[in-house]
Amino acid sequence: MSGTARTNAFDPNPAAVVIGSGSGGLTVAIGLARFGRRVRLVERDRVGGDCTNVGCIPSKALLHATAEAAAIGAAPGRTGAEILDHVRDKRDELWQHETKEFGSTENIDLQFGAARIVGPGRVEVTQADGSIDLIETDHIIIATGSRPRSIAIDGLGDQHLLTNENLFELREPPAHLAIVGAGPIGVEMATAFARLGTRITLLDAADRVLPDLLADASHLVARRLSATGVDVRTARVATAYDEASGRLTLGTLDDEMIAETDGEVVDGVDKVLVAVGRVPNSGDLGLETVDVETDRAGRIVVDTHGRTSADGVWAVGDVTDRGGTTHAANAWGRRIIRAIIVPRIPAGSEPILPAVTFADPEVASIGEQPPVAPPDVRRVVVDLSRSDRAFTDEATEGVVIVDVRRVSSRILGATIVGPRAGELISIFSLAMKNDIRFSKWYGVVWPYPAYADVLGRAVDDYMTEHLKNVARDVPLWLRGRLRARFGR
Amino acid sequence: MSGTARTNAFDPNPAAVVIGSGSGGLTVAIGLARFGRRVRLVERDRVGGDCTNVGCIPSKALLHATAEAAAIGAAPGRTGAEILDHVRDKRDELWQHETKEFGSTENIDLQFGAARIVGPGRVEVTQADGSIDLIETDHIIIATGSRPRSIAIDGLGDQHLLTNENLFELREPPAHLAIVGAGPIGVEMATAFARLGTRITLLDAADRVLPDLLADASHLVARRLSATGVDVRTARVATAYDEASGRLTLGTLDDEMIAETDGEVVDGVDKVLVAVGRVPNSGDLGLETVDVETDRAGRIVVDTHGRTSADGVWAVGDVTDRGGTTHAANAWGRRIIRAIIVPRIPAGSEPILPAVTFADPEVASIGEQPPVAPPDVRRVVVDLSRSDRAFTDEATEGVVIVDVRRVSSRILGATIVGPRAGELISIFSLAMKNDIRFSKWYGVVWPYPAYADVLGRAVDDYMTEHLKNVARDVPLWLRGRLRARFGR
Repeated sequence: MSGTARTNAFDPNPAAVVIGSGSGGLTVAIGLARFGRRVRLVERDRVGGDCTNVGCIPSKALLHATAEAAAIGAAPGRTGAEILDHVRDKRDELWQHETKEFGSTENIDLQFGAARIVGPGRVEVTQADGSIDLIETDHIIIATGSRPRSIAIDGLGDQHLLTNENLFELREPPAHLAIVGAGPIGVEMATAFARLGTRITLLDAADRVLPDLLADASHLVARRLSATGVDVRTARVATAYDEASGRLTLGTLDDEMIAETDGEVVDGVDKVLVAVGRVPNSGDLGLETVDVETDRAGRIVVDTHGRTSADGVWAVGDVTDRGGTTHAANAWGRRIIRAIIVPRIPAGSEPILPAVTFADPEVASIGEQPPVAPPDVRRVVVDLSRSDRAFTDEATEGVVIVDVRRVSSRILGATIVGPRAGELISIFSLAMKNDIRFSKWYGVVWPYPAYADVLGRAVDDYMTEHLKNVARDVPLWLRGRLRARFGR
Repeated sequence: MSGTARTNAFDPNPAAVVIGSGSGGLTVAIGLARFGRRVRLVERDRVGGDCTNVGCIPSKALLHATAEAAAIGAAPGRTGAEILDHVRDKRDELWQHETKEFGSTENIDLQFGAARIVGPGRVEVTQADGSIDLIETDHIIIATGSRPRSIAIDGLGDQHLLTNENLFELREPPAHLAIVGAGPIGVEMATAFARLGTRITLLDAADRVLPDLLADASHLVARRLSATGVDVRTARVATAYDEASGRLTLGTLDDEMIAETDGEVVDGVDKVLVAVGRVPNSGDLGLETVDVETDRAGRIVVDTHGRTSADGVWAVGDVTDRGGTTHAANAWGRRIIRAIIVPRIPAGSEPILPAVTFADPEVASIGEQPPVAPPDVRRVVVDLSRSDRAFTDEATEGVVIVDVRRVSSRILGATIVGPRAGELISIFSLAMKNDIRFSKWYGVVWPYPAYADVLGRAVDDYMTEHLKNVARDVPLWLRGRLRARFGR
């Protein structure tokens, strides 16, 4: 075994090797280290992973700084270039802090290099100087994350192509940014760059923005984007780009086939941000040497504890089929810690994961909400115009949509669009985790005039209908329960 | 009985007479009307009461408009005068809306005039034209609210004296506003007017601002106020004002005696806002004719249902000893509706009332938190600097303080200072109402990076200590429970 002086201080037989120091990897490494387990934490690039370096942190710093600048709709205190510099400063501050912290955390050996599984309990780390370090361990935790999915747009070269990985390297806001993909990244960046004065064209192959959202909520978000000048074009894909003229040609997507539209183009585009999904970083890890199962999308399949199909190999975060967000990686990482530290104690129920898009206003959801509520579910819809705080703050565009099972009042899912939706959704997160039925929300005092007051209105609406219709609801509820149990 | 044509259409024998159309009165009137009870709603002045006209609504509209203007710390888009006009517009819009709505709500007869109880079940209303209308009813609900407590400041005349009742009539922001009383009103108005460029001197007789708050939280608020240029002077009262020079003389308050300080003065004060508490509007109501009990402060004493000591007479809101806020009036008003409509069904436990001051950042609290946590209580303190969102938003000044009973993990109280604290407190409101122990918060997924994440850190801190110390905690907890039951 060759290695640098630093590496030689590392334990060659740690309790666990964690591959990747993003949200999932850090959660597991810190947790195991706190319980006294020696952990080798291997990072190929920057500590903190996507979230710290090219995800949550720079995007939220940008959203905050641009909101401040845009607040009065007039000359911002900082130029776009200064704001982009500021975002990099914030990102680097946290990255440096995390690098220092986890480089000196008790029981964590932070090592830079590319890790590869070479056999059961055996990991090889290739360091920058070419030296290779062999580790033997009981537990291997794969937390290598994901990268942006790329798509073919004829004529679009690196000079004009952006993804979340190089977006925050921009020195100046683009003049006209086309964003391909109106998921959370696309919508957040449309929001932020529009505030910087960038002209935005936002495309999605689906028939609406944030396609995972209920249609009414999605339409509200689209209206708000349009109101800030974003050119929203749904059911559209980008087929070609002409670097010389900045012309982007659009098409439609039918049955997975791209069809040319009749000359629909967007002119003067100087940058194209592609945000059409993620690809798991499950290659080059030697998964085949220990038979780690992946799904068709290449994501590592894990069980309810975070175990892969291979003994002693675990996976967490975006590289798995249970990933998607920093808080998901954190929640699933905690299950791995628990399963390793107290393997005999059964894990609790699987985490209920909220999702937030930090647009203006915020968009949050949790649980399951089918496009149309089934007969045994009461869908409560409250428009934000009924909130007095929304009135005083002139922010009345928004909605709360809660799905509640009839009779039992069990909450199945909720969507909130409005200021502070990203905080309000945690009320559902707590309630759903502890199965606090919606009827039990009655009598909760919501401070006036906070935005949470609108949840009180949802509860009042629900209870009024609930008490009025209990007799009629019982057969509907019973039929729903039977269907859930025995199929149609 | 004499009366106008309009009055003659009113039911002379309604099920209930509600005196006062503020938060408490409206809650009860609307609730009873929905259950088919005819209600006479008597208003002496403006529908909506203090909240709509001189309280929550104009203050929150002002806070919002000034925050927008101050966001970039530079030339606001609107002048101070324009912002004050805007606040009046918002207030009048809601007032007119409510006047129209409750003037035409089924089962509600809205009548303008001064009401007075003249005997059991008998109320006289004196209208503007001097005509007197006699009503006979089963239920009288007193919801007459409160008015600002006045204090003697030598030399301070009406021209320079402000209270919440005339503050929002200002055409221009004062040049130098002295605020006497650093409770919620004082702190909110200091925050708002400072943003308009008004020089602010904020006094309180107590040794800190927001004296009901835990000291650490209060000091944080004071630091933030000072950072925005507010001159905070605690343990000080105003003793004299010289109209010609604008000199305000300060004193100290010892054992309820005012002592002159050694020449401590504030110069150039052009307006003095007095916000030192409230006086219940319990006079001139004929309470003595039916023996309604009041406490030493003049507040009407009510039982757990909202009943006064007189048969068929109820009271709600600021005029009672259970008032204080719009949401308190709403919560207690609901208990009255329930007791009138379904008198045989026992009322649930009394409402747990959060309190929010909409300062920058927001300040929220709920439950009981003694200055020092007793031995059987674990006090969890998390600094907001541990929130990643606070980091990206450069808003790291704040704190979460949760009191949790050892062993049982029951939540006794919480204080939050930080952005969106007014929303986050509702998570405690839901949990405390449903007795979700703090240990049951473990496993809740908080969306990243929302501010609610900091609650996850509080839970983690609690659980780490909780699991480590359970053996040592049991005797402490037991002793606390015995003491609670049998006294010391």
